[in-house]
Amino acid sequence: MIHFRVTKRSKQSRARLGILSTPHGDIETPAVVGVATQAAIKALPMDDVVATGTQLLICNTFHLHLKPGEAVVKKHGGLHRFMHWKRPLMTDSGGFQVFSLGFGRDLNMGKILKGTSREKVRAHDQPQSLTITDRGVRFRSPVDGRSLFLGPKESIAIQQKLGADVMFAFDECPPPVAGTAYLRQSLDRTHRWAEQSLAARTSRQALYGIVQGGKYLKLREESARIITALPFDGFGIGGELGGDKTTMARMLGWMGDLLPPEKPRHLLGTGHPEDILGIVRAGMDTFDSITPTHYGRHGVAFTSAGRLDMKKSIFLKDTRPLDPKCGCKVCRDHSRAYITHLFRAKEISAMSLVSFHNLSFYNDYLAHLRQDIRKGVL
Amino acid sequence: MIHFRVTKRSKQSRARLGILSTPHGDIETPAVVGVATQAAIKALPMDDVVATGTQLLICNTFHLHLKPGEAVVKKHGGLHRFMHWKRPLMTDSGGFQVFSLGFGRDLNMGKILKGTSREKVRAHDQPQSLTITDRGVRFRSPVDGRSLFLGPKESIAIQQKLGADVMFAFDECPPPVAGTAYLRQSLDRTHRWAEQSLAARTSRQALYGIVQGGKYLKLREESARIITALPFDGFGIGGELGGDKTTMARMLGWMGDLLPPEKPRHLLGTGHPEDILGIVRAGMDTFDSITPTHYGRHGVAFTSAGRLDMKKSIFLKDTRPLDPKCGCKVCRDHSRAYITHLFRAKEISAMSLVSFHNLSFYNDYLAHLRQDIRKGVL
Repeated sequence: MIHFRVTKRSKQSRARLGILSTPHGDIETPAVVGVATQAAIKALPMDDVVATGTQLLICNTFHLHLKPGEAVVKKHGGLHRFMHWKRPLMTDSGGFQVFSLGFGRDLNMGKILKGTSREKVRAHDQPQSLTITDRGVRFRSPVDGRSLFLGPKESIAIQQKLGADVMFAFDECPPPVAGTAYLRQSLDRTHRWAEQSLAARTSRQALYGIVQGGKYLKLREESARIITALPFDGFGIGGELGGDKTTMARMLGWMGDLLPPEKPRHLLGTGHPEDILGIVRAGMDTFDSITPTHYGRHGVAFTSAGRLDMKKSIFLKDTRPLDPKCGCKVCRDHSRAYITHLFRAKEISAMSLVSFHNLSFYNDYLAHLRQDIRKGVL
Repeated sequence: MIHFRVTKRSKQSRARLGILSTPHGDIETPAVVGVATQAAIKALPMDDVVATGTQLLICNTFHLHLKPGEAVVKKHGGLHRFMHWKRPLMTDSGGFQVFSLGFGRDLNMGKILKGTSREKVRAHDQPQSLTITDRGVRFRSPVDGRSLFLGPKESIAIQQKLGADVMFAFDECPPPVAGTAYLRQSLDRTHRWAEQSLAARTSRQALYGIVQGGKYLKLREESARIITALPFDGFGIGGELGGDKTTMARMLGWMGDLLPPEKPRHLLGTGHPEDILGIVRAGMDTFDSITPTHYGRHGVAFTSAGRLDMKKSIFLKDTRPLDPKCGCKVCRDHSRAYITHLFRAKEISAMSLVSFHNLSFYNDYLAHLRQDIRKGVL
């Protein structure tokens, strides 16, 4: 089980400092959670992940169910041993991934609406490639075409075999273009699945409920009221929070007020560098984001002076580190010129180096924000 | 400059134990040299390379001249600082790469003859994409199409800017199907280029001459006689040594006898695991091979029980390390199942992990062979 203690509350914002204790150690919050979807941080062997100061990882139930299958993981004694990660670990329920296979693929979009699509998803619509029922989702494995079924019972059973410290309830992540009638139906389903997820748990792992409701305050309020009334150990915030940064910050603020102050809150799948201050100010304790490693693999370094596109030849003349203010081993050992050379020479270690720096940058940034809360300046 | 001392000679073979001292530290020989063609070991950041026990790296003059250019490297104070490698370093002259662009590409072959091509290269033949003159080779940059010229003078000038501890003379590596008339002409050219390489050197870096001569004992003898009469600091053995392992071992034995015993010998670009014992028994002090990292990236692990293809699903059931007899950090931390999962999930850290293990395996194997020479059993 986990234990969460808020050690300081900001007087200027909803920000809070805390300690999340798990069977695999304590996490100082607010904290960024590294995304290890397939039991690996992309381009970084696990001992490098430890060296970035990452406190906590999140793996994905849907992906690990498909490959290598939870039985392989269980044979190792769980995910911690399978991936050789000795620190705290979360597993996402797979809800988001199942739905991104469905409407996400049909409409060619993620959880954020990009572009100008106004096509509505109406009540009782079904995506082309899967069938959503009250019990869960039937879909074909993208690996081998097998017919698979994932619902709250199945997700919790898999997550228990994976054995992370924190599990998430199975939810539906509706597409950003869902009409209110669809959202209503989806939200009711997610709330029923939350209860069923709790009922399915037989292990001592922590379980977080997920608040949905899209960009509608009324639905978010209702979802928060229903989900926080259930005996979850913490709460996740899923789905769309508005298409722009200002709306997102406002939505997160609402959520911060709706959630019980004594339990930990996790923001699912969000966190560009420019979002982080707002996330922390809204009172989130943890958030996970592929941004540091996704951008890292594509050559974009996050630095105290902003983003640098390390694929650009101009950096071949630059003997400075990625970020002269960063103390990570990549900034200690390597120049911008060397890293740019590696990208241009198509050496995959380039991806590892910038991913390492970016994860270190995120962890350092969060450590500074924690310090600011401690000092009373945030 | 370098200093080489043979500390023990085997009574059973030509094998010898030695210390090669360089401005960046001592190398215990016989030793494997890691191939960092573009100033990087593929898929392994430099601090991981150190952790594999690798004593010495070799970079490539041709590749680094094209990308990022020696001026970028020199701005960092040389290759050691550019790539953050504090140990001894060699640079190959670029001869092999220029010729693999030429006849190698025309005939679709490397330095070893594979398949059944019997097409001869005759005296005065020129490859399609470059022009060989007595001064060197004119070719088009595969990067941007610029017309470039590389000869002994140019190669040494670049290698001096790169600043490795050991340089190699510019040579021609003739294709394995070269007729004897072509080989004769090519060998004379390589011998003239050897003298010109020596004359071009103005730095205190060591310079190795390269013995060519293909698979013909008479030509190898002549080449060794001419090259070893020149004041080189050591000798490289280049080119084809016969198409099969037995011929190669016999050829290497001949070479071991032809080279002066007090100077270090380096075998260029050869070293499958099953070749290594023969290489050491023939009295070679160092050899470089892409095999550990090339095979590693393709999922093949070298172990005390032979090769394992880690892409095979059978290993998903196997919780043992890659090699239970190996003490490297990959074998300490990860199971075969996890590594196979990473390959099947297309995680690039899989390539890093097996490359790390394979390089460690090579270094451990060489350490054992040195121990055997020390104990008088090899």
